[in-house]
Amino acid sequence: MEIRTILVEPKLEENIGAVARVIKNFGCSELYIVKPANIGEKAKAVASHAYDVLSRCEIVDSIEEAIKNSVIVAGTTSKHGISANKHLRMPFFSPRQLKEKVKALGKSGILSILFGSEDTGLKREELMLCDVVVCIPTSTEYPVMNLSHAVAVVLYELSEVEGAAATSETEKLASVEAKERLFMHVKTFLDEIGYKEHKKEKTMLMLRRILGRAELTGREVQTLRGILRKAEWKIGDVKN
Amino acid sequence: MEIRTILVEPKLEENIGAVARVIKNFGCSELYIVKPANIGEKAKAVASHAYDVLSRCEIVDSIEEAIKNSVIVAGTTSKHGISANKHLRMPFFSPRQLKEKVKALGKSGILSILFGSEDTGLKREELMLCDVVVCIPTSTEYPVMNLSHAVAVVLYELSEVEGAAATSETEKLASVEAKERLFMHVKTFLDEIGYKEHKKEKTMLMLRRILGRAELTGREVQTLRGILRKAEWKIGDVKN
Repeated sequence: MEIRTILVEPKLEENIGAVARVIKNFGCSELYIVKPANIGEKAKAVASHAYDVLSRCEIVDSIEEAIKNSVIVAGTTSKHGISANKHLRMPFFSPRQLKEKVKALGKSGILSILFGSEDTGLKREELMLCDVVVCIPTSTEYPVMNLSHAVAVVLYELSEVEGAAATSETEKLASVEAKERLFMHVKTFLDEIGYKEHKKEKTMLMLRRILGRAELTGREVQTLRGILRKAEWKIGDVKN
Repeated sequence: MEIRTILVEPKLEENIGAVARVIKNFGCSELYIVKPANIGEKAKAVASHAYDVLSRCEIVDSIEEAIKNSVIVAGTTSKHGISANKHLRMPFFSPRQLKEKVKALGKSGILSILFGSEDTGLKREELMLCDVVVCIPTSTEYPVMNLSHAVAVVLYELSEVEGAAATSETEKLASVEAKERLFMHVKTFLDEIGYKEHKKEKTMLMLRRILGRAELTGREVQTLRGILRKAEWKIGDVKN
C-alpha cells in the first residue's frame, strides 16, 4: 500500500518541515496538508534534504479532499484512555496492529493517515471520517507526542523499508561443524595449558554457552582458532 | 531493562529538548548528555511538559562516564550499507531485533543507547565502545533521520520491554569496567603470543563484538580471564 500522510491544520512550520523529512526517511512521498500555517524558510531548513517532498506537497481546504482515492483512512490520537464503548474510537489500533491489519487485507491502494493540529489533535468530527483510529502506546504520564515525532513512529511501523537494512549485509553464521571444531580446539588448548581437570567440563560448557549466544560467523570462528593456534605455537616455541 | 538515552555532543538545543519530551512520552527517564551545546530557553520550550527530564539530565565529559553501570551499550548509526567484514558494525540490529534480543535475554540492568552528533553521527572510536550497533531501517535515498526522531523510533520500539519487565532471577551481567579489563587482558595476551601487529586491531574489534553479543555475566568474565592467566603461566613456565 502507498502511504499518504495528511496533516490537519498544522500550526508550526518546523513541524511541517520535520514531517517532510520523516516521509522521505521512510521512503514515502505523499504529503497532504489541510489549511496549513505559512510554509516558509523555517520549514525548508528543517526538511533539509527532503525539500522535494515539501515542495510537492498538496495543500487542500478540507479533509474530504485530502482523503480522496484512499482505500483506508486512519486517524491518529494520543488519547488512549477512551472507553471501548465509544464507537468514535473503534476500532482502536496501535500502529503495529494497524500494520498487521493492512497486511492481512492484502489490498493495494492508498492508506491515508491523518494527524491533527498540535494543540487540539483530531477533533470529533474529523475522527468520524476515519475507518480506524490509531494510537501510539505512550506513557499515561505524558502521552502527547510532538506532531512530527508521532508521524515518525507511525511511518517507521508502516513503511515497507522494514528490515531491509538489518538483513542485507549480514554474514553467514558458522556451521554446527565449524563450531564443534572450535570447541574441540579449545578443549585441546585447555589440556595444553594444564587447565585443572575438575574445572574443565564446567568451563567448556560455559564457553559453549557464551559462543552459542554470540552467534558466531564462519569468519569469526576462523579468527578465534587462529588465536588458539598462535598461542599453541608460542607454547611449543618456548618448549623447544 | 531500564533504558538510558545518551546524546553525544548534540549541537542543537531544540533537539535536546525534543529528546527529553520523547523520553517522557515513552515512560523512560534517564538522559545523559556528553558535552552538549548550550541548553537554554529553546530546549525548555521544545521539551514542553518534559522539563523535569531535561532538568534532571546528567551532563558528562565522556562516553565512558555516560555508559557507567550499563549492562548493554548500543550505538546507533544511519549507515546501513556497511560491508559485513567490518567488525565495527557487527552485530548489526534493527531496533526490533535489538528488542527481541533484549527480551530473550530476560536480563535486568541498564541498556544504554548512544546517539551521535547531528552532523557526524557516532564516530569510529565511539562505536568501538558499543556492544551492538543499531540501525533504523530507512530509505537509502535519505537514510539520515533527525536526532530526536531517531530517538523517538528507538524508544517506541524498546519501551515495550519495560512493560514486560517480569524478569526472573537472572545472573548479573558483567559491568562495562569488568569487560574492559577482560579486553585489556586479551590485548596483552595477543602481545604475549606474538600475534601479528597488523591483524591485532581488527581481531580485538572482532572479539569485542563477539563478547558484546554474548552478554557476558560477571562470573563468565572471571572464567575467561582465568583461562588467559593459566595460558600465560604455561608460557612463562616453559620459558623458565
